[in-house]
Amino acid sequence: MIKIALDMMGSDFGAVEFIKGIKMYLAENKEVQFICCGNKEELKELEGLERVEILPTTEIVPMKTDVLKFLRMKDSSMYRALELVKEGTCQGLVTAGSTGGFLAGSTLMLKNVKGVNRAGFCAPFPTAIKGKQTCILDIGASNTNTGEELVTFAKLGSIYAKEILHIASPSVYLLSNGAEEGKGLEETKEAYEILSNQSDVNFLGNVEARDCLDGHHDVIVSTGYPGNIFLKATEGCAMMMNGMIKKAFKRNLLSKIAYLFAKKGFVEMKETMDYRKTGGAILLGINGVAIKTHGNSDAKFFYYSMDLAYRMIKADIVSKIGEAFKDEKR
Amino acid sequence: MIKIALDMMGSDFGAVEFIKGIKMYLAENKEVQFICCGNKEELKELEGLERVEILPTTEIVPMKTDVLKFLRMKDSSMYRALELVKEGTCQGLVTAGSTGGFLAGSTLMLKNVKGVNRAGFCAPFPTAIKGKQTCILDIGASNTNTGEELVTFAKLGSIYAKEILHIASPSVYLLSNGAEEGKGLEETKEAYEILSNQSDVNFLGNVEARDCLDGHHDVIVSTGYPGNIFLKATEGCAMMMNGMIKKAFKRNLLSKIAYLFAKKGFVEMKETMDYRKTGGAILLGINGVAIKTHGNSDAKFFYYSMDLAYRMIKADIVSKIGEAFKDEKR
Repeated sequence: MIKIALDMMGSDFGAVEFIKGIKMYLAENKEVQFICCGNKEELKELEGLERVEILPTTEIVPMKTDVLKFLRMKDSSMYRALELVKEGTCQGLVTAGSTGGFLAGSTLMLKNVKGVNRAGFCAPFPTAIKGKQTCILDIGASNTNTGEELVTFAKLGSIYAKEILHIASPSVYLLSNGAEEGKGLEETKEAYEILSNQSDVNFLGNVEARDCLDGHHDVIVSTGYPGNIFLKATEGCAMMMNGMIKKAFKRNLLSKIAYLFAKKGFVEMKETMDYRKTGGAILLGINGVAIKTHGNSDAKFFYYSMDLAYRMIKADIVSKIGEAFKDEKR
Repeated sequence: MIKIALDMMGSDFGAVEFIKGIKMYLAENKEVQFICCGNKEELKELEGLERVEILPTTEIVPMKTDVLKFLRMKDSSMYRALELVKEGTCQGLVTAGSTGGFLAGSTLMLKNVKGVNRAGFCAPFPTAIKGKQTCILDIGASNTNTGEELVTFAKLGSIYAKEILHIASPSVYLLSNGAEEGKGLEETKEAYEILSNQSDVNFLGNVEARDCLDGHHDVIVSTGYPGNIFLKATEGCAMMMNGMIKKAFKRNLLSKIAYLFAKKGFVEMKETMDYRKTGGAILLGINGVAIKTHGNSDAKFFYYSMDLAYRMIKADIVSKIGEAFKDEKR
């Protein structure tokens, strides 16, 4: 039986969507058990469900949290969920709560896998090719990173793509301001040099931000700050354009009829770009499976997050990372 | 009479589209004169045109150019165009050629305005609000910048928005990984501190990448590397989604009819997002008006670029920058 801790607080919609997602997932997967941390009242609906345990907590980690603040909130749903992983009761957790709290808490409480110099916050993105994902890390666990840390991210992303996305030899690229060698930050150039002289990952050079989501790049490595800018620039642009498409179809009766005629294609587009199916962002390189979904996740997104946690635990990804880094002197 | 140097080489389509754009623009603006630098054969069509002078050149600056390479190409169209500005024959130039060559050449040959510690490469973006632009700088003249350089960018962008976009008191933001104070790179935090204690620009805090193009931010300041990532991430996402929209409408006969019904709204969307109307990217803070358009610019884009150069010269923006920076100790 696989046991996953769920931080039920911190979602924009309270626990309602999370609970729906849990019910959907339990109906499909008989091999999973949940410990749900959160406000007792809000979780009433889960009482008596098979394979669900409730762990009542009293605090919620606020959106803006620093490390010290987080560590004082010992009865928060997020702290308790992390504790369950730390003590080995659960093998992973899912949260929609504070990103700052999640990153600080996961790193401090679960600690890096031996040999990993820096954990990487990894976002799988949907791409132009339906069903094909691209993993980008780091998307903001750090601001800056050394060249060696970028090499670590390359290895972590590669293991993820291999074990979870089942790509035999994932292609790995460095995000840069030009595709040719010699472009980018000093640390990018340093990582380029190291990656060119190793055989652990299938390193294929630099990639520019405009090509990242074409579906032909499996793993893309970046320092945290530009990675975060990439994530949010893409998110903002997609939101803006989706809003414009909606507006164009809602213009008048004729355009509304047009939507009915063109619906199939636009549903296909929506499905291709559906980031909920990626399951959320993952902190890779720590002792446990730790997944952060959007604050505004709906039941479907939570469903995919729990499934991702399940698949990562099932694939024993933490041990595989340990194996890959066992010879690093740290 | 306003004189503008045109680097006619380096566009993906040869000089064809540029020439079309020149003819369009000359017909509308009787106060402008062009000196066209380029291959004599390619420019034959311009011979005998009123207010057009041809300056034959023999070399083309290749896409990948470093400073030394550029400086040796004294008979390249780009070098000659810059020379015309340097010697005062022209007040500005437009090029669709190598970005590396453009940045190196403009900075070295035209030099920074007195008091400007770093020129900023500024891209005006279309936003969700039709006709409303957001200026983002630096988008890649530098990789990294100091806090003080970011303050310079804030002033430069503010002058541009005031003089060229006619915004009385442009709102200025720092691009960061969180909207609250204290987020971002060390240099962002340093700039935040300085900008909070001055009255030259209307500084309103940090902005996240996802909100940059909502139409409510006039000037957004970033170090060059993440600025470049933002530019290209947005470009890539918009291209991807435009491709998907096209595909959705081309699916079958019914969807093709749907396009006819919904056309007005989608034309409106296209117009709102039309980056050609921004005129291209501008290197701000040097002694001359220097505009870089896309390598794949069409006649319309060139038209807007020449108009932007004209308006910047007409507004005497270089003198205004000089005035604003005259008390800087440099």
